[in-house]
Amino acid sequence: MTLALPHIGALPAGARNSIADVPGVTVGHCTLAEGACQTGVTVVRPHGGNLFTDKVPAAATVLNGFGKSVGLVQVEELGVLETPIALSNTFAVGALAQAQIRQAIAANPEIGRAWPTVNALVFECNDGYLNDIQAMAVQEAHYMQACAAAGVDFAQGAVGAGRGMSSFGLKGGIGSASRQEGEYHVGALVLANFGTMPAFTVAGTRIGGLLAERLQAYAQAQVEAGPEKGSIIMILATDAPLDARQLRRLSLRAGAGLARTGSVFGHGSGDIALAFSTAYTVPQQADAPMPALAMLHETRLDALFHAAADSVEQAILHALWQADTVHGRDGNQRVALRALMPELPQWLQRQAPAPTN
Amino acid sequence: MTLALPHIGALPAGARNSIADVPGVTVGHCTLAEGACQTGVTVVRPHGGNLFTDKVPAAATVLNGFGKSVGLVQVEELGVLETPIALSNTFAVGALAQAQIRQAIAANPEIGRAWPTVNALVFECNDGYLNDIQAMAVQEAHYMQACAAAGVDFAQGAVGAGRGMSSFGLKGGIGSASRQEGEYHVGALVLANFGTMPAFTVAGTRIGGLLAERLQAYAQAQVEAGPEKGSIIMILATDAPLDARQLRRLSLRAGAGLARTGSVFGHGSGDIALAFSTAYTVPQQADAPMPALAMLHETRLDALFHAAADSVEQAILHALWQADTVHGRDGNQRVALRALMPELPQWLQRQAPAPTN
Amino acid sequence: MTLALPHIGALPAGARNSIADVPGVTVGHCTLAEGACQTGVTVVRPHGGNLFTDKVPAAATVLNGFGKSVGLVQVEELGVLETPIALSNTFAVGALAQAQIRQAIAANPEIGRAWPTVNALVFECNDGYLNDIQAMAVQEAHYMQACAAAGVDFAQGAVGAGRGMSSFGLKGGIGSASRQEGEYHVGALVLANFGTMPAFTVAGTRIGGLLAERLQAYAQAQVEAGPEKGSIIMILATDAPLDARQLRRLSLRAGAGLARTGSVFGHGSGDIALAFSTAYTVPQQADAPMPALAMLHETRLDALFHAAADSVEQAILHALWQADTVHGRDGNQRVALRALMPELPQWLQRQAPAPTN
Amino acid sequence: MTLALPHIGALPAGARNSIADVPGVTVGHCTLAEGACQTGVTVVRPHGGNLFTDKVPAAATVLNGFGKSVGLVQVEELGVLETPIALSNTFAVGALAQAQIRQAIAANPEIGRAWPTVNALVFECNDGYLNDIQAMAVQEAHYMQACAAAGVDFAQGAVGAGRGMSSFGLKGGIGSASRQEGEYHVGALVLANFGTMPAFTVAGTRIGGLLAERLQAYAQAQVEAGPEKGSIIMILATDAPLDARQLRRLSLRAGAGLARTGSVFGHGSGDIALAFSTAYTVPQQADAPMPALAMLHETRLDALFHAAADSVEQAILHALWQADTVHGRDGNQRVALRALMPELPQWLQRQAPAPTN
Repeated sequence: MTLALPHIGALPAGARNSIADVPGVTVGHCTLAEGACQTGVTVVRPHGGNLFTDKVPAAATVLNGFGKSVGLVQVEELGVLETPIALSNTFAVGALAQAQIRQAIAANPEIGRAWPTVNALVFECNDGYLNDIQAMAVQEAHYMQACAAAGVDFAQGAVGAGRGMSSFGLKGGIGSASRQEGEYHVGALVLANFGTMPAFTVAGTRIGGLLAERLQAYAQAQVEAGPEKGSIIMILATDAPLDARQLRRLSLRAGAGLARTGSVFGHGSGDIALAFSTAYTVPQQADAPMPALAMLHETRLDALFHAAADSVEQAILHALWQADTVHGRDGNQRVALRALMPELPQWLQRQAPAPTN
Repeated sequence: MTLALPHIGALPAGARNSIADVPGVTVGHCTLAEGACQTGVTVVRPHGGNLFTDKVPAAATVLNGFGKSVGLVQVEELGVLETPIALSNTFAVGALAQAQIRQAIAANPEIGRAWPTVNALVFECNDGYLNDIQAMAVQEAHYMQACAAAGVDFAQGAVGAGRGMSSFGLKGGIGSASRQEGEYHVGALVLANFGTMPAFTVAGTRIGGLLAERLQAYAQAQVEAGPEKGSIIMILATDAPLDARQLRRLSLRAGAGLARTGSVFGHGSGDIALAFSTAYTVPQQADAPMPALAMLHETRLDALFHAAADSVEQAILHALWQADTVHGRDGNQRVALRALMPELPQWLQRQAPAPTN
Repeated sequence: MTLALPHIGALPAGARNSIADVPGVTVGHCTLAEGACQTGVTVVRPHGGNLFTDKVPAAATVLNGFGKSVGLVQVEELGVLETPIALSNTFAVGALAQAQIRQAIAANPEIGRAWPTVNALVFECNDGYLNDIQAMAVQEAHYMQACAAAGVDFAQGAVGAGRGMSSFGLKGGIGSASRQEGEYHVGALVLANFGTMPAFTVAGTRIGGLLAERLQAYAQAQVEAGPEKGSIIMILATDAPLDARQLRRLSLRAGAGLARTGSVFGHGSGDIALAFSTAYTVPQQADAPMPALAMLHETRLDALFHAAADSVEQAILHALWQADTVHGRDGNQRVALRALMPELPQWLQRQAPAPTN
Repeated sequence: MTLALPHIGALPAGARNSIADVPGVTVGHCTLAEGACQTGVTVVRPHGGNLFTDKVPAAATVLNGFGKSVGLVQVEELGVLETPIALSNTFAVGALAQAQIRQAIAANPEIGRAWPTVNALVFECNDGYLNDIQAMAVQEAHYMQACAAAGVDFAQGAVGAGRGMSSFGLKGGIGSASRQEGEYHVGALVLANFGTMPAFTVAGTRIGGLLAERLQAYAQAQVEAGPEKGSIIMILATDAPLDARQLRRLSLRAGAGLARTGSVFGHGSGDIALAFSTAYTVPQQADAPMPALAMLHETRLDALFHAAADSVEQAILHALWQADTVHGRDGNQRVALRALMPELPQWLQRQAPAPTN
């Protein structure tokens, strides 16, 4: 389907305009949507093989650490991923970590015995406005279902981990986008659950005020004026050969894209970015050969930095634009951006800079 | 009971020579010891009240991040604890995080709804040599039992989270110690699961080689010469008024005590220190008054740094000296230091510096 | 003079709309502008007293560490400033550090003897496009002159450290702005030397393309399409009572304001933010009483985060809007934004969102 | 000359037992020793070529940031050195940074023009007890002299930057050592200016108390009982192929060696370690090929960690053992360890563990 939203930045998108434009990367969802249970799991798989034996270089930036993600301590130390990346709600972290451990042991029976333990990697946002998060509905099986569903074509919006998320007072969720820079791709997948309505900015135009008016008419809802209590998780994938230090630099640039949508990395928002490269793998065992390829020269990172910021900004817009309205616990609802303002693409076109003479 | 080991450093110990010398701090264990299941849970409670509404200032140092502890991202950002501190084996982290969430919700029903989510704080070491860690035996109920058992008098050695841990090729586990500096106390509790036998150093004397000989005689065991695959968790408590930045400084000094026992913070060892202060609490809600007390002048930290290093070194010695021999999965066993060398205190006394004339 | 540029964000500006709205803060310049020497020094003084004996709480965020600032190691460890903040060109850092040391010794003769040494704090950007930076023209005396000139009213644009700086392919330099939030102020002062022209965004409108056309007509100049080789230093002051941890959080939000102007924290750009509070001071000597005031509750930081991002974005716009065209070494020149587009304020007003019916 | 001190650890030393055992690494001193001026400069050159065009991978750990070193911000971001490493007294940092800039420009005239600026890298300790540090005697020429003097054979003790330094209440200064691990070397060079006498520990034996008695007899001096006001700089070189992330891990292990000598990383001590690899270089310009060699497998770091800790501990002992007594400003003196206890090696041998039966 065509996303008629403005294209962010100067670099072209990849063929799918999603994180799956990075060869090998797949995404799967498991969505739980029944009554007060509006939540789910999303999995990003860096490659289709055994991630424990063939680890992927990675690094993260914590823009604001009001968050409960697990696995970042080891990623920072060792610079690799060794499981798929799991996303869900805050109180599902424990169950998903256990699921990842069991999955890794199933493929590598020596984990925790002759081999070291495995580092679970789970990111979370709080979907408690729509979802009865206290019910802790997410089970280990849901993680396995999301893994099994992983592919290069995947839904965006109110699906998977994004099912119960809110963003800018509207329905948030999962969004993705990509950019191409020469032979390399940068893809982003976000779990958007952040932002206050007045600050919402689309491609430089602050439309939060307008949307607030419409929301009041549409839903007779009082727009919350509270602080950011959400969070955003931003996953970046690239096929450029970068080491962990360079990937940390790349991950930080997710923050530039995030800021342009209206975030100031609010106190209560866990804003975390993780970047990984698929250009090579790092073996678990010392007797396997280490990769011996040249990393990208540092000065070539600039274009990738733009790709990271642009694809994150674009992915956030996709998350909101693709989301459907969701009704959740206790009568709470989040209205879809598209329901409020279906003509947004056309409206934005009319905001093009006026002639100056 | 008297620990006849040498006293480390110049500062005196507190009355109990344990972390419970810091007023308000209690420790509880739940030990699982049956057949191949040799593991458990230890809980450190900074105070007896509601930690979510009355948070405790805290900060951590990751000396080596080969570890899967959860909760450190938020501790670093916000500088507070809001749950008891849980310790267990690596694969129990998920279950314990869920237990902490449920415990916090039970006391604070608005968590995840009107209030933000709660930050679980769980530390771990890999006890897979003795314990069938893949069985994932630790359940949420074990956490609650450890909390219920918390008190100022608590066992050390092969108990609680320490049940299945190994250290320097011997039986490791839980150890504790404290130091007094003027009106203030610093207490340490460690979960010791690190170290290679040749490096083991007691109060400056490297006795690893001697112990290796004895172990071979005692157990007909081949002493492993492998790398450090363990980990150590070091919890520091103090009643000195320190802010999070100062507590981070304090926590780093745990590493000095650790190094003196023979550790080089090995690649495969997750070496993490966390320090908290009981001198004041930070309210959850903005309408409660913030604490308005003077922090310690920075130059007064030096004595506390010695207290931290000395109490960690002492606590490690206690962990080994208090531990009993444990037989675990697949015929594996870890012999107690005291079984190998019951005369260690006397032997060490004979190592006193020779006269120099 | 009135800055007719759009007001960024929802919070009101302070009386001066500059960092000097934070009571006690003063700014002074020393400008060197002759031929190929186009450089200078700017000093921000947190208070008018002896900063070594009465230190100011402070913390920094390095968004991109391609920079040569000095003093940040100690600021991060101890959380205080003990000299005025000096800004200049990259190769002046050594001279300014020496000037700060001599200034501190003159006021505190025991520095380096009975007292510890003093931590110089110097920030820099590379003005080598306009300025013959290899000539190393800045001397210690220029620092003293900038200190002597410090006051609450100070020039912006191509003055002081900003004299030779470039931003978005135009003339950059010194800019300042402030925001009020209840009883508290947040003020920003930036040294803007960053950005590529195509990315330049004013209050959400990307005008870089338009400006590039005009620049070509105006100056027969080929607009550089190169990467960011500049840098930006962002100084934040507040009178809110924040500790060093909270100030670090505040400093990071400078990055949100920076991103909104078109920066992705380019590889070659040293992007550093420092925040300090004037709400209390920390004594050098342990026998002086430590401050005993309540810090701001963490949830109240959100409004200050907006104030930080907004005042940084505004300060960047002021830096460009206030700057005059400067001709420097080897015939190089940087054209002023105001020279290229004097009608910018009116033009921007015409970009207001179109009606939506 | 033979250093008859005990050999620390299990790994063998390199041929010179100094940092110059890492092929290509050279060290030079410039010593200023006249009256109250007791200071100097030491330079470590990672290779003999143009470091700006052929950078060396590097990373640092700040154990305690009470220090004024310059250049670490950029080393952390980019993971490379681009100048020799300069060491001197605290107030010489500015002059040495300027000297490094001029040296780099002389070899690379486009620095600060077509090319970016150069990152000076200067480490310091406060030698103000012996040296009239306020006189700021170190000039740019002294840096050039130290560079010119660089070679594989170099003096240790009270020379170069170590001329005025104190350690454990005795004469400190420059020390070096190395270890071999298979085909690789790890070498350490320290500038030792830290430690309180009671804590001084040689190869596990705390001899501070004994030395304090002797010092009183020798010098009729009152032994200072004050806090650590010194600092230590620890430079590690290796020819193992490590990337910047791995080098940061290696640099931290310097802290283990440091702790074993009696340091708790005192509040007032700037304790900083930097590690670099000579296994490959990183080109300044993007058109030069990037290195394409395999890094060391992470599990092979453990032996290097021991090499780092052991060579740092040994280098500290060398610094004290090689130092001569120095008389400095205002009648202050620091007595040499060798003057106080020439029989130290023999004495230590008598401390060997007693037989146990």
